[in-house]
Amino acid sequence: MSNVYGNNIKLKIFGGSHDKIIGMTLDGFPAGVSISSECLQAFMNRRAPGNNAWSTKRKEPDVPEFISGVEVKNQDGKIVYYTNGDTVNAVIRNTNQHSSDYSSLVSIPRPSHADFAARMKFGKSVDLRGGGKYSGRLTAPLCIAGALCLAYLEARGITVGAHIFQIGNVRDKGYDPISVDADTLIRISALEFPVIDADTQAEMKERIEDARKALDSVGGIVECAVVGLPAGIGDHPFDGLEGRISSIVFSIPAVKAIEFGDGFAVAERCGSQNNDAYVIDGERVITSTNRAGGIIGGMSSGMPLIFRAAIKPTPSISSPQDSVDLDSMQNVKLLIKGRHDPCIVPRAVPVFEAAAALAIVDALLD
Amino acid sequence: MSNVYGNNIKLKIFGGSHDKIIGMTLDGFPAGVSISSECLQAFMNRRAPGNNAWSTKRKEPDVPEFISGVEVKNQDGKIVYYTNGDTVNAVIRNTNQHSSDYSSLVSIPRPSHADFAARMKFGKSVDLRGGGKYSGRLTAPLCIAGALCLAYLEARGITVGAHIFQIGNVRDKGYDPISVDADTLIRISALEFPVIDADTQAEMKERIEDARKALDSVGGIVECAVVGLPAGIGDHPFDGLEGRISSIVFSIPAVKAIEFGDGFAVAERCGSQNNDAYVIDGERVITSTNRAGGIIGGMSSGMPLIFRAAIKPTPSISSPQDSVDLDSMQNVKLLIKGRHDPCIVPRAVPVFEAAAALAIVDALLD
Amino acid sequence: MSNVYGNNIKLKIFGGSHDKIIGMTLDGFPAGVSISSECLQAFMNRRAPGNNAWSTKRKEPDVPEFISGVEVKNQDGKIVYYTNGDTVNAVIRNTNQHSSDYSSLVSIPRPSHADFAARMKFGKSVDLRGGGKYSGRLTAPLCIAGALCLAYLEARGITVGAHIFQIGNVRDKGYDPISVDADTLIRISALEFPVIDADTQAEMKERIEDARKALDSVGGIVECAVVGLPAGIGDHPFDGLEGRISSIVFSIPAVKAIEFGDGFAVAERCGSQNNDAYVIDGERVITSTNRAGGIIGGMSSGMPLIFRAAIKPTPSISSPQDSVDLDSMQNVKLLIKGRHDPCIVPRAVPVFEAAAALAIVDALLD
Amino acid sequence: MSNVYGNNIKLKIFGGSHDKIIGMTLDGFPAGVSISSECLQAFMNRRAPGNNAWSTKRKEPDVPEFISGVEVKNQDGKIVYYTNGDTVNAVIRNTNQHSSDYSSLVSIPRPSHADFAARMKFGKSVDLRGGGKYSGRLTAPLCIAGALCLAYLEARGITVGAHIFQIGNVRDKGYDPISVDADTLIRISALEFPVIDADTQAEMKERIEDARKALDSVGGIVECAVVGLPAGIGDHPFDGLEGRISSIVFSIPAVKAIEFGDGFAVAERCGSQNNDAYVIDGERVITSTNRAGGIIGGMSSGMPLIFRAAIKPTPSISSPQDSVDLDSMQNVKLLIKGRHDPCIVPRAVPVFEAAAALAIVDALLD
Repeated sequence: MSNVYGNNIKLKIFGGSHDKIIGMTLDGFPAGVSISSECLQAFMNRRAPGNNAWSTKRKEPDVPEFISGVEVKNQDGKIVYYTNGDTVNAVIRNTNQHSSDYSSLVSIPRPSHADFAARMKFGKSVDLRGGGKYSGRLTAPLCIAGALCLAYLEARGITVGAHIFQIGNVRDKGYDPISVDADTLIRISALEFPVIDADTQAEMKERIEDARKALDSVGGIVECAVVGLPAGIGDHPFDGLEGRISSIVFSIPAVKAIEFGDGFAVAERCGSQNNDAYVIDGERVITSTNRAGGIIGGMSSGMPLIFRAAIKPTPSISSPQDSVDLDSMQNVKLLIKGRHDPCIVPRAVPVFEAAAALAIVDALLD
Repeated sequence: MSNVYGNNIKLKIFGGSHDKIIGMTLDGFPAGVSISSECLQAFMNRRAPGNNAWSTKRKEPDVPEFISGVEVKNQDGKIVYYTNGDTVNAVIRNTNQHSSDYSSLVSIPRPSHADFAARMKFGKSVDLRGGGKYSGRLTAPLCIAGALCLAYLEARGITVGAHIFQIGNVRDKGYDPISVDADTLIRISALEFPVIDADTQAEMKERIEDARKALDSVGGIVECAVVGLPAGIGDHPFDGLEGRISSIVFSIPAVKAIEFGDGFAVAERCGSQNNDAYVIDGERVITSTNRAGGIIGGMSSGMPLIFRAAIKPTPSISSPQDSVDLDSMQNVKLLIKGRHDPCIVPRAVPVFEAAAALAIVDALLD
Repeated sequence: MSNVYGNNIKLKIFGGSHDKIIGMTLDGFPAGVSISSECLQAFMNRRAPGNNAWSTKRKEPDVPEFISGVEVKNQDGKIVYYTNGDTVNAVIRNTNQHSSDYSSLVSIPRPSHADFAARMKFGKSVDLRGGGKYSGRLTAPLCIAGALCLAYLEARGITVGAHIFQIGNVRDKGYDPISVDADTLIRISALEFPVIDADTQAEMKERIEDARKALDSVGGIVECAVVGLPAGIGDHPFDGLEGRISSIVFSIPAVKAIEFGDGFAVAERCGSQNNDAYVIDGERVITSTNRAGGIIGGMSSGMPLIFRAAIKPTPSISSPQDSVDLDSMQNVKLLIKGRHDPCIVPRAVPVFEAAAALAIVDALLD
Repeated sequence: MSNVYGNNIKLKIFGGSHDKIIGMTLDGFPAGVSISSECLQAFMNRRAPGNNAWSTKRKEPDVPEFISGVEVKNQDGKIVYYTNGDTVNAVIRNTNQHSSDYSSLVSIPRPSHADFAARMKFGKSVDLRGGGKYSGRLTAPLCIAGALCLAYLEARGITVGAHIFQIGNVRDKGYDPISVDADTLIRISALEFPVIDADTQAEMKERIEDARKALDSVGGIVECAVVGLPAGIGDHPFDGLEGRISSIVFSIPAVKAIEFGDGFAVAERCGSQNNDAYVIDGERVITSTNRAGGIIGGMSSGMPLIFRAAIKPTPSISSPQDSVDLDSMQNVKLLIKGRHDPCIVPRAVPVFEAAAALAIVDALLD
């Protein structure tokens, strides 16, 4: 079965950016997990486009509709969804497509978009409207599945939170690998522009605004943490946490790199500088440092799990670019129209939380 | 089914470092792929321990023995294995175990080894002799599967090659993302100490020797390239090449980070600086830069596929370290005995080639 | 992944008899298969309840609605669905539930219904309204998937057709195992009461009417044939055609037995009486008899594939029956209300065609 | 992944009748299951050829050798295998192949053997020595996996036993569907010629001897029962017990039909004659009849599970038969040499126990 995520849960995403319906099918998800309609929508809105200055002007309400797998209950005037163990099918009806913008992409691929590779794969009949299935829009159904997973984890005392770690050359603080806690993660997530060090916020927004004005875009890094995870989750070799997290994180468009704990920095170190010593901390065993980012041998160590992923600058920029006409095999200049994000990093933050939650739930169900 | 790699091929690894037999089961591998016993052994030897100064003193011949899935033919005095489409089972008989070295690990976990997490997962009965199933020794069966995949790719004009990119703070050149070719990859692979820039070799060996003398260890980075891959291989979202490669690369013990193309560097850029423009090159379409490392939208772009992965310093060091006794819940000092690599980076190089080949073959079989 | 049918296609059924929505998710189904809305509905109507004297009075229009996986095209005023290779999701909205009929089943299980086993499995909270997920109603989504498979097969010259072989002690002729052809299968399928020997029809209907009048029910046998299947489809040992067909046929409620070709009759024979000799027939090789029912070694032989399956009498009968109250653990008399089929065999005929088509398509995609 | 049995366990069989090694790979099997070498061998011997008058003269000791997945312990001089949760690999080394007997099968297919279909599937290069992978010899590795499952079940109070129900037209009694118990199943299994009604034994053996003398063969029926199974095992629709059992039973060569409980007989009945009424039996709920054979809605009912399967007469008979030469496309007479069983039913009895045990274990692990 192709294009499925998970060993225990099985997640499929369907539809394309400019289809009438996009959605997801989630199998193997436990019964009895509940999430209020309100809470789900709030999570969806963090990713939804059109809500602020640094986002595309395409505005989509992104309201999830469940086809199967949940019981809908009315509790004190609030709609609450309870999973019933059956296949969860949920869809989002697209409302705001401008497909005419994308008519020429099959012949003239946009640099650093999936257009060229998709045409090589599927031929001339490939549907690239709005980026087709390669669009970041497909992270919306991923967020529905992720929201269910976050609810599952929350009920078990496990909290996931991400923040903007870097935009362009402006870098936020990282989470403290020893002391980061659920409260911190929840507080940061609630911010409209989630950074740890409030001072970096203005400068980051400025980078985005500069990019927007220059008809350009800018990349960044998201950092994500999971706290409350017991030690021993994940399994070596092919079911390790790094592998499970990275394989879903790379399904988020534009991600080009991932590192756990101190990541690439470990290459320069000696073992004596990199090892995390065990110490007794009351009734628990902790490590006095957490360079491993909470994962050893593919398994959780009981310390905060921390990873960072690099997001390339949105390839849709409004200045003319070199490309080729694949039908006439001529070099051409390409000017991209349509509505785009100058920086997708802020909207990607909840998507990383969703991805991490899916990976952790899948590992917990081993 | 847990701990399996692949959507189309299905790879399992079995056994532990100090079991009599370790091995692998590979399902779904195409019939008709051939590899000579000699060529397979040469590949295994690049990973095998005990062959040089920067390796552990544990010497293992690592001779693969096929139980099923291959026909053995004698061609001009050479043994050649031909896959027959059936499940490939292959084993390696361990010859040189010193299990007595590891008796106390279950109580007193070694810092930055899997011991603690494994005990949390499996309890006191966990088998940690020689690192158990967490040992780098289990990359030997991975290399058998990888060698078959490399043979499959070679017959289709696809070449995989890795080199030592960094040891400690000494950095080799990277592969040229535009011009790297099969000859280069083959030539570098044949080196006993595979680096591009011969000048870095002495310095890297010195770092390793320094670590060895200091009873310490040192980390590094491996860079791997694949050339000859047609455009359009891999599938979005969950079957993308980055996800498939990363999920197997993180099954290699000690890997903490991976980046494709320019990786983390893309975070600082604008789109206009990061996009790879298309240009006509004779009868082909290429990109004039290859910041993407040959992957767009999870699919191959037709350009060289390049990734780098960070390997932490071997956690087994011979100086005393802080740990805890999990039975008495006391802080203790731990002195690790046994035979260890001061730097596993050189021996890991073929393992990365094996991992990349497995991921690429799996994607080609979609 | 549980409750999935298929190695290459992956079929899931969701919902229960008295849910608002029932449906199916079909993965791995090829792109480019087309079926008109009219043709699909005609197939659904053969199974739909409430259309004639021998069916339950619950009337459901059973109109499939596609959520994903098909393009809808308007061709000369007709709606035609084209699969696009994406996950096919389709739902049916239930319109005619009388859930109040089923309130007591959790305590007092109906003999020979799933109630008791389901309660033992899921406990008191099990949902048994209308038979819950055990209801024959769930064969409606199976028929949607089956209709797509039948369209796929039809385009390849493969025809599937079933008929009523037996009701009570009244037996129709069987398909001729040598000469049965597509025209015959299509002609019989088009009958409102599909039998080969028209003379048996009145007698069969009489048995059903007798059962209805006696507030009882009656069982039967369905025979199904597939013609046009090339030799060599299916794979030994676990992917054989008998195994694949039987595993989906037993998902049809009330099926208790299946036989291929001469089935149980082979037990009494000598090899010399049972072997099917090969003979040249023009440019083809056929067998002069077809006792094997078109399957040898799990693979198609190129001869018509024929199987029969026994369907027990509907367990819902209106006379009082012995049962127990599981809460008080007392023997009780049970009188079942609600609307039921005196004989489900006629409505089951297209369900067997759907099941056979699903199995054959899955095998063809190996 | 093709040719795998099981949702939770994953069983693969490899090798062909005349390969040096045949074997099996079993994944997902629980740790901590033990079986003595002696007990395993006794089970294998019930199936092994060459042990008595009604078997082929090919004698194979069929000694299982474990490659992985078990710890071997010496307990009071007995070898005992303990599964360790890892992939179980086990092989049997073939010792007594006469491959020269089978040279012409690729051109001239034996009637009612897999030869023709296999050649259509794989072309001229297909390996049909000794029946290749279609040979009943491959049920030996199935029995290794089955023996482990039987040990797992035994430790949980679940007993599986089969007997010869029919040979030619001679029929044994069936198991009593209400009162059959573990002791009965164990006692019958221990018989060299396992029948319930000892009086039928001589007559059955006579039928076999008649067939042998006439250079012919004879078919039969095996009946298998499982007792001690709690209610509620199995899951509707695609994970039902009938489907799971039938799909593995049809992997046993020569099986053409299967029925559960009263099977085909239910077709003739009214609901009032076929329903199994619930009654209180001490602290348990049982049914006063067990026409369902212990399965309702795909789930166990708590009553004895009973099924019967028809085995066709061995197609290898020594009298001349009509066939065709596929190379010259001429009708020919074929005279089959080699060593064959006049009746495989007695040797098949433990194979049905193995198959049933595999299906039940897989369902218990849901």
